[in-house]
Amino acid sequence: MMDFSYELLHTDPSGARSGVLNLAHGRVQTPVFMPVGTHATVKAMTPEELKELGAQIILGNTYHLYLRPGTEVIASIGGLHRFMHWDRPILTDSGGFQVFSLGRMRKIDESGVVFSSHIDGARCVLTPESVVDIQAALGSDIIMPLDECAPYPADRGYAAESMGRTHRWARRTKDAKRGHDGQALFGIVQGGMYADLRRTSASTLVDMGFDGYAVGGLSVGEDRELMQDMVKEAVSSLPASAPRYLMGVGSPEDMVGAVEAGIDMFDCVLPTRNARNGTLFTRRGKLVIKNSRFERDAAPLDGECLCYTCRNYSRAYLRHLFMSKEILSSRLNTIHNLYYYVDLMRRMRKAISEDKFASFKKDFFANQQPDANKEEVNK
Amino acid sequence: MMDFSYELLHTDPSGARSGVLNLAHGRVQTPVFMPVGTHATVKAMTPEELKELGAQIILGNTYHLYLRPGTEVIASIGGLHRFMHWDRPILTDSGGFQVFSLGRMRKIDESGVVFSSHIDGARCVLTPESVVDIQAALGSDIIMPLDECAPYPADRGYAAESMGRTHRWARRTKDAKRGHDGQALFGIVQGGMYADLRRTSASTLVDMGFDGYAVGGLSVGEDRELMQDMVKEAVSSLPASAPRYLMGVGSPEDMVGAVEAGIDMFDCVLPTRNARNGTLFTRRGKLVIKNSRFERDAAPLDGECLCYTCRNYSRAYLRHLFMSKEILSSRLNTIHNLYYYVDLMRRMRKAISEDKFASFKKDFFANQQPDANKEEVNK
Repeated sequence: MMDFSYELLHTDPSGARSGVLNLAHGRVQTPVFMPVGTHATVKAMTPEELKELGAQIILGNTYHLYLRPGTEVIASIGGLHRFMHWDRPILTDSGGFQVFSLGRMRKIDESGVVFSSHIDGARCVLTPESVVDIQAALGSDIIMPLDECAPYPADRGYAAESMGRTHRWARRTKDAKRGHDGQALFGIVQGGMYADLRRTSASTLVDMGFDGYAVGGLSVGEDRELMQDMVKEAVSSLPASAPRYLMGVGSPEDMVGAVEAGIDMFDCVLPTRNARNGTLFTRRGKLVIKNSRFERDAAPLDGECLCYTCRNYSRAYLRHLFMSKEILSSRLNTIHNLYYYVDLMRRMRKAISEDKFASFKKDFFANQQPDANKEEVNK
Repeated sequence: MMDFSYELLHTDPSGARSGVLNLAHGRVQTPVFMPVGTHATVKAMTPEELKELGAQIILGNTYHLYLRPGTEVIASIGGLHRFMHWDRPILTDSGGFQVFSLGRMRKIDESGVVFSSHIDGARCVLTPESVVDIQAALGSDIIMPLDECAPYPADRGYAAESMGRTHRWARRTKDAKRGHDGQALFGIVQGGMYADLRRTSASTLVDMGFDGYAVGGLSVGEDRELMQDMVKEAVSSLPASAPRYLMGVGSPEDMVGAVEAGIDMFDCVLPTRNARNGTLFTRRGKLVIKNSRFERDAAPLDGECLCYTCRNYSRAYLRHLFMSKEILSSRLNTIHNLYYYVDLMRRMRKAISEDKFASFKKDFFANQQPDANKEEVNK
């Protein structure tokens, strides 16, 4: 397929690996975290700020953009990149996850899904084919097929049936995509919390042949160990030669575990959402900025961090902005949290290149304090 | 007084003038607009963005900072400049206007004002002397004395009484300030809507001697003509050798009129508040971004504008961000509106330097369309 390649650079003894994605809008070093830009904006950020903190690729939500402003509007402005003034790669999801989260407001059959818009209640239809067309109009670098994300818990029968439909939709997506060059297409592994289904799903998709493989339907309520097991099962049936994307995951701890399992790509709203709620990630764990102990604290959020926020502002100021509900609070906190996520990936890539991932992981978990507020972070 | 001087550069035949303020944190070219940074942040902006759009000096609200985070907190971090990471000049108001706006929640006597905090209802006291101390702790470049802003309308007796108290407080402020070098102190002309009181107030303050003179108590509900009359009356009794600041004003039209009357400095929440509400200033008048006619409009807000927003984003995108209630909407709109205000001052300084203010003013008003939405802005 044109405009796409994946180069595996190095595999660490632990299984963690580093590589490079070549996409229509540029190169992406993996493992990589993709900030989430739901409404054609990574909340509170400009594209320049995302670049400054090191973001290489972002995620757009097809479901949200389809409903507002609408695919036609974005296409009329020249596509999603131009619309939002972001010239690096974009991955768009298929909208499946959002539609299935609507619960009783949606109906699934073999042809696709019918649902009511969360904005105005209008009846909408998504099919594997229409989802390809929408993402073609958006012009994203990587597109995802419509899939069905089984609820958790789901019995084996439902998980298997849902997986089967996801596979049939994946085939239709491949067929629909013929002729759309310049966009990479990933397959999505489903199978609920059943190890054998995860392996079957991965093999089935590999037989069809996709540019990369995503692991979907995780981080839906299961515990961390079960999630990591499912990741390992899926990865065991995926080729080393293709990139692997763990959808919607997750916490720094989850990502470190998944990189060890051989995952290359991540997206999650956690860093941006937590930022707006005043929960900040540091190398010593999380910090809740509204805590009164920060009222007169002249230190930066994280003394080791090189982000714009930590270079220029005190915890006292960040607490004041949060208490005053100022927009700058969301901005500075988002810069810090996204920098933390992007920098964590950078540190993991370095550890992998030096065959030191195991010691990186050990240090990482040793430094995670259950509540950084109770300890001095900058000692 | 140390660290302060005003240099009158040029007076245009119309009466409009240009000059330079030399302040502790730098030089300011006048006429100047000061963006309002109520809670130690110009809403939605970083200091770097303010500099990029050309802001030379900002305003801080003593009342709000005194209540939250509190003077002691800001002083403990090293003063307001360091707290908010802004190294250019700051003017702080006295808090008088905010306190008087509290209505029944405040009580005035000769010693000062007692009021209940709008945050937690706590009883607070501000006196002319304490307001000097608070602003000394904040470390602003220009400080303002506690004054009484008479309501509109106010009868002549009340306006005169209130003005007399403002003068006695101004005297106490001067006495309290002895020894605080590095901060300029302005006097505030009051006198309600009475021409002779405005002249008396100006002369009385000039006799006491201040670094500059503010005109307060305007833009409180009176019509534009009456406001401009009061400005002219006050200015007629002020020396050409000192800067003149029209507090809380205003619209672009108000500012153009006031510059012609000899005013040098302005502050107003209009550009920042309107930005967040989706009302944008252009050279052809105001534009309401939520208007459905902008849904697919690929043009920038204002085709002649050189701000970051107009250089990089379409009206369609700005409308989408506004409809989606995205933080970036407030950011991009604020950048544009503040740029418009700052650029308007730049254009007025240029016109003054070329003795062309009268033709500038004529063109300015000829271009103001009642509703820019109904006309093509970019023809």
